[in-house]
Amino acid sequence: MAMRRIITLLTDFGIRDAYVGAMKGIILSICPTVEIIDVSHEVPRHDIRRGAFLLSQVSPYFPKGTIHLVVIDPGVGTARRRIVVEGKRCLYVGPDNGVLLLAANAEGIEKAVEIKRERFMLSNPSTTFEGRDIFAPVAAYLAKGITIEDLGPKIQGFVELFFAEPTVKEDRIFGEVIHIDWFGNIVTNISRRMLENFKVVEGVYLEVHLSGLSKVMRLCKAYEEVPVKFPLIIIGSSDFLEVSVNQGSAVERFKTVVGSKIELSIRSR
Amino acid sequence: MAMRRIITLLTDFGIRDAYVGAMKGIILSICPTVEIIDVSHEVPRHDIRRGAFLLSQVSPYFPKGTIHLVVIDPGVGTARRRIVVEGKRCLYVGPDNGVLLLAANAEGIEKAVEIKRERFMLSNPSTTFEGRDIFAPVAAYLAKGITIEDLGPKIQGFVELFFAEPTVKEDRIFGEVIHIDWFGNIVTNISRRMLENFKVVEGVYLEVHLSGLSKVMRLCKAYEEVPVKFPLIIIGSSDFLEVSVNQGSAVERFKTVVGSKIELSIRSR
Amino acid sequence: MAMRRIITLLTDFGIRDAYVGAMKGIILSICPTVEIIDVSHEVPRHDIRRGAFLLSQVSPYFPKGTIHLVVIDPGVGTARRRIVVEGKRCLYVGPDNGVLLLAANAEGIEKAVEIKRERFMLSNPSTTFEGRDIFAPVAAYLAKGITIEDLGPKIQGFVELFFAEPTVKEDRIFGEVIHIDWFGNIVTNISRRMLENFKVVEGVYLEVHLSGLSKVMRLCKAYEEVPVKFPLIIIGSSDFLEVSVNQGSAVERFKTVVGSKIELSIRSR
Repeated sequence: MAMRRIITLLTDFGIRDAYVGAMKGIILSICPTVEIIDVSHEVPRHDIRRGAFLLSQVSPYFPKGTIHLVVIDPGVGTARRRIVVEGKRCLYVGPDNGVLLLAANAEGIEKAVEIKRERFMLSNPSTTFEGRDIFAPVAAYLAKGITIEDLGPKIQGFVELFFAEPTVKEDRIFGEVIHIDWFGNIVTNISRRMLENFKVVEGVYLEVHLSGLSKVMRLCKAYEEVPVKFPLIIIGSSDFLEVSVNQGSAVERFKTVVGSKIELSIRSR
Repeated sequence: MAMRRIITLLTDFGIRDAYVGAMKGIILSICPTVEIIDVSHEVPRHDIRRGAFLLSQVSPYFPKGTIHLVVIDPGVGTARRRIVVEGKRCLYVGPDNGVLLLAANAEGIEKAVEIKRERFMLSNPSTTFEGRDIFAPVAAYLAKGITIEDLGPKIQGFVELFFAEPTVKEDRIFGEVIHIDWFGNIVTNISRRMLENFKVVEGVYLEVHLSGLSKVMRLCKAYEEVPVKFPLIIIGSSDFLEVSVNQGSAVERFKTVVGSKIELSIRSR
Repeated sequence: MAMRRIITLLTDFGIRDAYVGAMKGIILSICPTVEIIDVSHEVPRHDIRRGAFLLSQVSPYFPKGTIHLVVIDPGVGTARRRIVVEGKRCLYVGPDNGVLLLAANAEGIEKAVEIKRERFMLSNPSTTFEGRDIFAPVAAYLAKGITIEDLGPKIQGFVELFFAEPTVKEDRIFGEVIHIDWFGNIVTNISRRMLENFKVVEGVYLEVHLSGLSKVMRLCKAYEEVPVKFPLIIIGSSDFLEVSVNQGSAVERFKTVVGSKIELSIRSR
């Protein structure tokens, strides 16, 4: 069987409208052999940061050559650039608003172009739905085999998205909530590596300050190390520290939001 | 690679049940090479008009030969006909309640049949889930290569769905809200062509009466021509006039519903 | 065209996170030719019983050889076994918590293994997301052609999931609500066969006791046999008795939940 190219879709279009369907139609009209994979269409409207995070969580697991098409684009129709970023493994198509960078930087960026050539867009593209009229056709032509240089001029810098890095003061780590998942798990920006630098390993207890609450919690390897409905901390599947509740919702317990501060005290034990 | 036929799915079944999965299983059992594309399963229950609108918005973008399978069917199990409509580009499979017609008429209807031949249905079809037992098998056999004439007798008329047309009195256009999308954009039945007939072009200001509010708004080409959270009017991606709010929700602002009246005053300026 | 294997996905991961996307990426990385079919990701969190029911409703409709990957796994990271069950038609991959058994038993179980061989998992699997790190790779390798014996030792018994069977006393049937669907239909565990044993056929009236209400309802063949918004009973598409409302929601009318008791009086008429 001929190699199938994969186009993944990540948007804030929801699943109740015809927008995603129209994009799929365009893609299949241009490149009938492509495999379309939905990542999510339920990114909160215009939430570039969440889109960037989700993309960074899926991209490493897709095959080399996958084309990630991301349309979270509050600036649609404006002068903001439309870009394709070629990483060491995958191609990233979307607006130049930072949504592509977390994933692309993680694998290493080879080069990038601004999408300019109209022959790879629909004719008379709308100004409100460039996902259908520009980004989807571009992704499909890439799947068909054009190079990113065919699309327009090379560019250097990008619009950056600032993600806070945790800081350290003596035996305390100051981090931030970067994601709250469907289960209510609270994902922070404190990485496994950072904890290892502090010689924090699974089984120890840390004092966690979050949303005005202070709680000593065990760094677990599995949720069930604490009783059902008890809180814990754990290195999650994204390799970041998460606050969780065994078979419950941490966000209900801690009433936190993305961007909330979290502080860990590495206590002598 | 052999040509893959595409079957799109548009239903009001939701995504929490096994109904859509069972339909996909049937389709793949009958025609393993087909490509199944979800358009939406979140059409509000029994909302034939919304289904018809969504279908009309995606169908033009799919390749020639695509089979659109639509199951929004409040009359399931009754004497209402089950039909296949062959348009100039695509095939439409679903109940004869009007849900297929907006899309099929737009491309031009070649012919249509009533689904009668039991050999292309599951044996002992249930009366509550004809999507699985009748429509899905029919779509799959069509993907496999049968003609619509194999399915039953030709029919002429259809159950029509009435969509209001805008009317004009002097310098005023009287239209209707036909769709409210996930972003809160209010889509009307006033087309680009109608506005062009009035010499209304982007950049002009129109007085809009909607839900008891009167507001002079700019006909924009991009949302950002007005400040963030300001309302505007724009020719949307469906080529109809939409009332929008830049990075906000027009439906929250105007508290309107599908079917609401909208009036435009083309004022001398 | 070479035979495409199918992997279906059924999880409680929701559609807002990157979890399902990451699983799809892994699967396509290992077996690029596989066809991935979403059954549902909206199983309520940790609801093993609902997952088991949904799986049993879709599995019979998929082609022989389909691999059903089910990750509803409150015990993730614990000592609970991870298993593959080979039925007469399909393969089932998931945790040993009963979620696979209703479907697998229905077709007949040939054999089963515990997943042990690390070469078919990601290296350093996380303890919180075995769907991505263990189950998805295993399903993909099965699609690629390994046998279930390649994965680990054969096992005999399983963790069972108890589903209540209806009981009969004189002319009364005592059953239970096992599912409430998106339309608000109330699905019970009383099968078509059981009603046939009582010589109950469509058209008769039965007295139904449910949620403190008693109501005589007609056993219909189609919803429209009663007026719009009237309740009825019907043998649903799952071959179980359902309480429905014609073009309405039975669960809104009867305020019932999964597990509620239902009693039928087969009255002499």
